[in-house]
Amino acid sequence: MEATLLQHPALESVLSDLAAEMAVRTDRGAVATYIPQLGKVDPAKFGIAVALEDGRVISAGDADEPFSIQSVSKVFTLTLALGKVGDALWKRVGREPSGNPFNSIVQLEQERGIPRNPFINAGAIVVSDVLLAGHEPREAIGEILRFIQFLADDDTIYIDRDVAASERATGFRNFALANYMRSFGNLDHAAELALGVYFHHCAIAMSCRQLALVGRFLAFDGRNPVAGHSVVSPGRARRINALMLTCGHYDGSGDFAFRVGIPGKSGVGGGILGIVPGVGSLSVWSPGLNANGNSHLGSIALEKLARTMGWSIFSP
Amino acid sequence: MEATLLQHPALESVLSDLAAEMAVRTDRGAVATYIPQLGKVDPAKFGIAVALEDGRVISAGDADEPFSIQSVSKVFTLTLALGKVGDALWKRVGREPSGNPFNSIVQLEQERGIPRNPFINAGAIVVSDVLLAGHEPREAIGEILRFIQFLADDDTIYIDRDVAASERATGFRNFALANYMRSFGNLDHAAELALGVYFHHCAIAMSCRQLALVGRFLAFDGRNPVAGHSVVSPGRARRINALMLTCGHYDGSGDFAFRVGIPGKSGVGGGILGIVPGVGSLSVWSPGLNANGNSHLGSIALEKLARTMGWSIFSP
Amino acid sequence: MEATLLQHPALESVLSDLAAEMAVRTDRGAVATYIPQLGKVDPAKFGIAVALEDGRVISAGDADEPFSIQSVSKVFTLTLALGKVGDALWKRVGREPSGNPFNSIVQLEQERGIPRNPFINAGAIVVSDVLLAGHEPREAIGEILRFIQFLADDDTIYIDRDVAASERATGFRNFALANYMRSFGNLDHAAELALGVYFHHCAIAMSCRQLALVGRFLAFDGRNPVAGHSVVSPGRARRINALMLTCGHYDGSGDFAFRVGIPGKSGVGGGILGIVPGVGSLSVWSPGLNANGNSHLGSIALEKLARTMGWSIFSP
Amino acid sequence: MEATLLQHPALESVLSDLAAEMAVRTDRGAVATYIPQLGKVDPAKFGIAVALEDGRVISAGDADEPFSIQSVSKVFTLTLALGKVGDALWKRVGREPSGNPFNSIVQLEQERGIPRNPFINAGAIVVSDVLLAGHEPREAIGEILRFIQFLADDDTIYIDRDVAASERATGFRNFALANYMRSFGNLDHAAELALGVYFHHCAIAMSCRQLALVGRFLAFDGRNPVAGHSVVSPGRARRINALMLTCGHYDGSGDFAFRVGIPGKSGVGGGILGIVPGVGSLSVWSPGLNANGNSHLGSIALEKLARTMGWSIFSP
Repeated sequence: MEATLLQHPALESVLSDLAAEMAVRTDRGAVATYIPQLGKVDPAKFGIAVALEDGRVISAGDADEPFSIQSVSKVFTLTLALGKVGDALWKRVGREPSGNPFNSIVQLEQERGIPRNPFINAGAIVVSDVLLAGHEPREAIGEILRFIQFLADDDTIYIDRDVAASERATGFRNFALANYMRSFGNLDHAAELALGVYFHHCAIAMSCRQLALVGRFLAFDGRNPVAGHSVVSPGRARRINALMLTCGHYDGSGDFAFRVGIPGKSGVGGGILGIVPGVGSLSVWSPGLNANGNSHLGSIALEKLARTMGWSIFSP
Repeated sequence: MEATLLQHPALESVLSDLAAEMAVRTDRGAVATYIPQLGKVDPAKFGIAVALEDGRVISAGDADEPFSIQSVSKVFTLTLALGKVGDALWKRVGREPSGNPFNSIVQLEQERGIPRNPFINAGAIVVSDVLLAGHEPREAIGEILRFIQFLADDDTIYIDRDVAASERATGFRNFALANYMRSFGNLDHAAELALGVYFHHCAIAMSCRQLALVGRFLAFDGRNPVAGHSVVSPGRARRINALMLTCGHYDGSGDFAFRVGIPGKSGVGGGILGIVPGVGSLSVWSPGLNANGNSHLGSIALEKLARTMGWSIFSP
Repeated sequence: MEATLLQHPALESVLSDLAAEMAVRTDRGAVATYIPQLGKVDPAKFGIAVALEDGRVISAGDADEPFSIQSVSKVFTLTLALGKVGDALWKRVGREPSGNPFNSIVQLEQERGIPRNPFINAGAIVVSDVLLAGHEPREAIGEILRFIQFLADDDTIYIDRDVAASERATGFRNFALANYMRSFGNLDHAAELALGVYFHHCAIAMSCRQLALVGRFLAFDGRNPVAGHSVVSPGRARRINALMLTCGHYDGSGDFAFRVGIPGKSGVGGGILGIVPGVGSLSVWSPGLNANGNSHLGSIALEKLARTMGWSIFSP
Repeated sequence: MEATLLQHPALESVLSDLAAEMAVRTDRGAVATYIPQLGKVDPAKFGIAVALEDGRVISAGDADEPFSIQSVSKVFTLTLALGKVGDALWKRVGREPSGNPFNSIVQLEQERGIPRNPFINAGAIVVSDVLLAGHEPREAIGEILRFIQFLADDDTIYIDRDVAASERATGFRNFALANYMRSFGNLDHAAELALGVYFHHCAIAMSCRQLALVGRFLAFDGRNPVAGHSVVSPGRARRINALMLTCGHYDGSGDFAFRVGIPGKSGVGGGILGIVPGVGSLSVWSPGLNANGNSHLGSIALEKLARTMGWSIFSP
């Protein structure tokens, strides 16, 4: 589907129209308030960006304003961890949708400490534990940040230390998940250490424009289409996209696939990363969340964008 | 991705090689034995077929031998039911992966009688209940069969009455699911009636060649690419494909998406239908099942076929 | 504790005072409405009775008006089934509190079709299945009724056929439970047959006076203290009392033991049977139910009666 | 039942015979090994003791050897906490059997952080949190120990600091439970603090003789029958006994009530406290556990003792 779409003359105006439409909607969902740093974000914000194969990034709205990417970061820590331990990761984390909210502990009891997939909290904590191997938390956090900066070729991407500290101070349920997995032997480091890494990568902040660039390799067989180098193999890119599609929106993953029809990963900060293989990477940000904890207007905007542009992995 | 692939000179030999390789494998999974009719199927059988846009069906192995398609039929009853009631169906059935075995009743208790998706047993029973509206079971069953025959333009496709009778005689868990949903008001007809429809459509028998033809419309925007008429709208075809990807292999759906990378729907008879949008529809049959109740060699064959041909919805 | 209490001069006035107090309370709980026969019972009804060792039955309020004993009957079918198959019953039914509502199906999935105890619906359906062995449902139902009439020496106790028919017509969840257990092989007869017995014994009607007499053997080592004959061994009476204490009030059993302190079994018709070993058997009837499905004022009246009379199995 | 039994001439010989019988049994269950201090206890140990109203303690076997009372201590921390906050405790902890293993976290998710009863781990951690109010952990621990020493009038009862340290070093699941409850707002102090108290009271060590004396007040309306002073009101003693009966043996509570027929509380160290209202308090110790985590031979010995002596709260 790629050839015509890349030169689609209308993409800029489609994004502008979308941003204008979203700016005036009054159904904006509810901003996450479990930490003050997220709660004080302006719910009127809306940004959207598309990174294309030729290096252009088309955007609209508040696409240059940094926000807390939260769980979107799990795509990149997964990528790093697979680079370190390869398929051995799948002995400690599953690849199935959870059928439960993002922070459910019930499944862990039934499946003896093995999280269902790397995108629910428990799974991402195991991924952080993998990235800790042989490192101090500070080093592992630095490696994650540098990897993400490298992907976007932009070292202004940063970690919001206040957000990380707030997450740590109130993240009792994540402490419960980590200790619970440790009781089953599925955490190699102390809960405090693995969570130290986890809370920091969730606190990474960047703009829509930057996020689209960070995720772009997933749309192009694992390559940076501009610089030409390979980040991961085509097979790995394909499989990460598959995981995003089946597990990227918690217990709303099926609905996102049904409505939007592309791989995506959401974060509680209101950001979503979407991948259109061969075409580009999308990012959207609107802080208000729906009942499943995914950006309300962000999901709607991606659905409209995908319909307008004919972007779906389920169509010819 | 379609243009080059349609004329791919190697597809015939790829399928032949696959069939030859699968014929000699000794890890064949376990044939379902819960009814005698399935238990006596020869585990050495293996068939594979691909239906292309130009009307050709390329096949290998036992691709002309009928088998019990079982749950693969749920794709077609869903298509019919959406045609009858449209999106109103989604008030009675969800669109999320279940995170549980195909016949789990736990989720129904937690979600007050609403099945997670139309491809687990409970969801398909609701779909049967929808198809019963205003009809005798015999009529509803006839309508389903005729629709499937129409899709393949082949009225030799038939219902194996012995299989249907055996399913009814031993399907206590399905009776439990149906009565349970009725207790929540999510079944309009007596369990016996809805299950009469359900057991009969699961007992439909056809060959790989026929199954590929029946499912072909899903690969081509809902159209019969040869006759040219539309079966469903492009949007509906896209969304049915999305449901197949996220929910088509029970609690192995994530793994199938990860490894094979195309929408698919499996049945306990050992058949799988796969969709490559814009390219064609695939079907495979090998009676032995893996731990998730999906065809063991069928899944492996589809994974190999997809890799060899470069067919993945998650790649450019 | 028995000697002094049996001649307690105040029991008559205690019961009269209780009935008078309960008559004017406005918090009466909600009458069960799932079948019309129960829904039309007057919520103002209140009866209470105590059957003593010497044959006297002291009562107050509407103690001579028949009501549907519903699940209280499970005490007597359990007694009969233990007489038939003895401890072999415990291979098919557990002896632990359920930690779930009376009609939960979740536990059955986790424990492979073995109900937690004979007083939740699933367990009582297994007991009915045991009583069916070698019999037509009509015969098994007749045997249960005659046993209960024998215990009270009163053949006016009867089965309300309208209640039984209504239960059958709407008991979808019980059909689900029965079919579900049959799928695990823990039901020997068709669901319709076992439920035929179950619905009929739940539809037995009697007055508080009669119910106290039916249950009296449990207070006196399994003997009829007036006629002198043995119904069950002392050990069996003791163990049935233990089951009533730990499991007799569904997910409110712990609370009943905590507040009232005697073995008891409740029914959704608003009746409760209580046992004070060595002293007598109590019965109370008030149709309105609390959140756990147990008689609201009935529980309160038994708590007050037990406190006033010093009746607790947990005190010297 | 008390008068004759108190002078029962045979109690000494009954206990001696039991101890001799248990000494030679080869089915001894499995000693808990999750911490080394418990794992190295000699499985051949067996002690039993009965504390009577007149101050005598009859014993046999290793009744003077200290062991880790573990969860038996929860009876005494509950008693203390009820003394501090009274019925307000029941807003934070339920009174129902759990229907789950002692350390299950599933129920906490379903019931929003409220443990089912004070004897499962989560409930006892809340009780520890209550005892911490206004105190340093060291003070709260000291208060618990002094209360237990006071009950037995024996200040040689001690806390095994090695056991407490081992519990803390490996108690990941308890850290999970505590953090999980904190995420629901049902823990006032940091998990580390509440667990500090919890691990220490579980590490209290005493002999069977001492344990029988500590628990004796529960058999005599809350009074010390020798010194004459009241520890708790008769009503509170009765209700603590009721909780022990319905919840004292985790998911084996129903079975213990069925077989033994008296209130009891077990610990993973192999100890059990039993209460015969009006007669005395029993304690038994045999380190090997059954599948439910309760002392295997200890349960059998109490069942035999209760049958021989005619001790059951469910009999006249």
